[in-house]
Amino acid sequence: MPAFKFTIDAESPETWARAGTIQTPHGIIHTPIYMPVGTQATVKSVSPEELRAAGAEIILANTYHLMLRPGSPLIDTLGGLHTFMHWDGPILTDSGGFQVWSLGHLRKLTEDGATFKSHLDGSEHVLTPERVMQIEAELGSDIILPLDICSPYPCSPQEARQAMEQTHRWEERALVAKERYRPEQTLFGIVQGAFEPELRAESARIIGNMPFPGLSIGGLSVGEPKEQMWEMLRHVTPALPRDKPRHLLGVGSPEDVVIGTGLGMDMFDCVLPTRVARHGGLFTQYGRVNIKSARFRTVAGPIEEGCDCYTCRNYSAAYVHHLIRTEEQLYYRLGSIHNIHFMLRLARQLRASIIDGSYPIFRDEFLARYVPASEQVRTDQREKWKAARARQNDIISLK
Amino acid sequence: MPAFKFTIDAESPETWARAGTIQTPHGIIHTPIYMPVGTQATVKSVSPEELRAAGAEIILANTYHLMLRPGSPLIDTLGGLHTFMHWDGPILTDSGGFQVWSLGHLRKLTEDGATFKSHLDGSEHVLTPERVMQIEAELGSDIILPLDICSPYPCSPQEARQAMEQTHRWEERALVAKERYRPEQTLFGIVQGAFEPELRAESARIIGNMPFPGLSIGGLSVGEPKEQMWEMLRHVTPALPRDKPRHLLGVGSPEDVVIGTGLGMDMFDCVLPTRVARHGGLFTQYGRVNIKSARFRTVAGPIEEGCDCYTCRNYSAAYVHHLIRTEEQLYYRLGSIHNIHFMLRLARQLRASIIDGSYPIFRDEFLARYVPASEQVRTDQREKWKAARARQNDIISLK
Repeated sequence: MPAFKFTIDAESPETWARAGTIQTPHGIIHTPIYMPVGTQATVKSVSPEELRAAGAEIILANTYHLMLRPGSPLIDTLGGLHTFMHWDGPILTDSGGFQVWSLGHLRKLTEDGATFKSHLDGSEHVLTPERVMQIEAELGSDIILPLDICSPYPCSPQEARQAMEQTHRWEERALVAKERYRPEQTLFGIVQGAFEPELRAESARIIGNMPFPGLSIGGLSVGEPKEQMWEMLRHVTPALPRDKPRHLLGVGSPEDVVIGTGLGMDMFDCVLPTRVARHGGLFTQYGRVNIKSARFRTVAGPIEEGCDCYTCRNYSAAYVHHLIRTEEQLYYRLGSIHNIHFMLRLARQLRASIIDGSYPIFRDEFLARYVPASEQVRTDQREKWKAARARQNDIISLK
Repeated sequence: MPAFKFTIDAESPETWARAGTIQTPHGIIHTPIYMPVGTQATVKSVSPEELRAAGAEIILANTYHLMLRPGSPLIDTLGGLHTFMHWDGPILTDSGGFQVWSLGHLRKLTEDGATFKSHLDGSEHVLTPERVMQIEAELGSDIILPLDICSPYPCSPQEARQAMEQTHRWEERALVAKERYRPEQTLFGIVQGAFEPELRAESARIIGNMPFPGLSIGGLSVGEPKEQMWEMLRHVTPALPRDKPRHLLGVGSPEDVVIGTGLGMDMFDCVLPTRVARHGGLFTQYGRVNIKSARFRTVAGPIEEGCDCYTCRNYSAAYVHHLIRTEEQLYYRLGSIHNIHFMLRLARQLRASIIDGSYPIFRDEFLARYVPASEQVRTDQREKWKAARARQNDIISLK
């Protein structure tokens, strides 16, 4: 199998949606695709066999977390990430840039790279474009990302340009550094530019023309209203080459994947489906339900009629409700499987609709039916998660 | 399939060990057997398919916990415990007596039954021998136990006799009450008598001669030194009928199952294998290891060479170590599967050794090789767990 090949199987004429096939050393990916996130070399509470059964074709793992624990040299010694976590399909690793950016006052940026303190023990680490290539080579993932800078929302146009240009310089260095390591790995470029339409288009043109076989769009879904994220894509997609797969980093919810596909995105990753599942939020075609709610206490049917996931085939909603109410670990698994399966079925439906030409109808019907979590709920959730992270960082910075 | 049938397939001449077959409405059980415990209608973190794959033939569930959440009438409405928890093999439910006894100052005993306050919300509940039969009929388990009194350790001979005699009277009432419900359920008798050899023998004779198709030995493993537990069995087993299966309630560790088998026990249940797994204690043929220990950080091989459990077939000890160090939920599953598989393989080895006549050699070799947790470690663990429970009860009693 070649290291990497992207083929466009169909395009949706009225939109920018496409259906494609990506070949990697560990198997084929059909796009559009949702990639479950296995931050610490495990998709929380779900086994590799269950991911396969839910339709997963590629998963994502986090370089930042794995470089700290258990460390990339150890993973290398143990045969690489695939062997380590018992997942023989494709793996994409991010660069760690986003997490380093999230550390706030625990990190320092220079032209050379980023110095940061571990959120675990306060120990100091340095990430440079070259070092990230080395770490990802040790991890042995199929698709790797270069170190980038993710600007905060909001930020000034000057800051946005500075971060983008620095990212571009780092990406050039990453391309050079990558040559030292595994030819079977594929380095994607990252498009930045914050929320400046011109910068987004400029970044897409520049990075799109560099010899990256695929492109990730970074710096979105960082707190901005959703409409602003879509507006950025409207400037990015037309500036990108047609023949490279496009990955929308860290996005998203079911409705995001449906909309993002129409705006030309092929690959999506997000912790949201598994994170909200752990808090009781389960996807149905009408929106998210809270399985903790008393209305599920006596429901003999599945979470969603017609769903063929492992959970819905074998357990009543009442049982799943019982498990979360009694804080049983099996709940986290059953809930996560349901949501991952939902996302992957949605990706297959999107692909089928693009191939048979009905994507715009599918999108409009889905969005008419599916009630997303409100902006207010999203903001509240984000603030809660940010506060939890800030508390953790404060503890570290006192060390 | 008949509701219940016990056949002795082989006996070990120099000991009291036997290999048997139990038929139940939900399948066959080969004895000696270890029964994983699914307190709240789930064996913590393990799926029914994984229990099957680990060799489980019967599981135990707790009446006390299920009557409080989600309630036995609801489980009945939803098709019974088997459907509710998606386990189609045999299920044994205890009577709730042990848990009520554990509540200490939250419960009151009378001739009629036990009144207790829920550890969850302080609400008052009454358990009588008749009520327990009704609850277990609603749960729909295959083997059910009658309400009994589990004396504390230590207790006076007078208290021991009183509790035993009350238990006997309750068991007679349970036999009568059971007639009102499901004929396909099998009611075991419970032998009590605390730590008085004469009472133990008396209880075994009386309950053994009542029309119970099987017998559970209760009130042991409640804090006494192990030798004292075995001493009680030396008085109980000879007084029991040969043709009824014998269940040693709440026991035990690997070495307990090996020794108990030689003392005539056929069935064992205990949370220990899954509980210690959750804290990092994993079984090997040389004793328990702590997978959290730094020595596993780089081990590319499995937890135990030659183990064919799902965990050992697919994951390095280093990965399992990484999961517990990062507090990943998948750890609890992989650790529990390993220990359950260990217990069930041990049960199969015991059975094979009884059938081929080598049980005494197998026992002696196992005990020579396997280093059990010391009495001190056991006592410390127990005190920790008791303290945690006491704190919970104190909160309730203030309500």
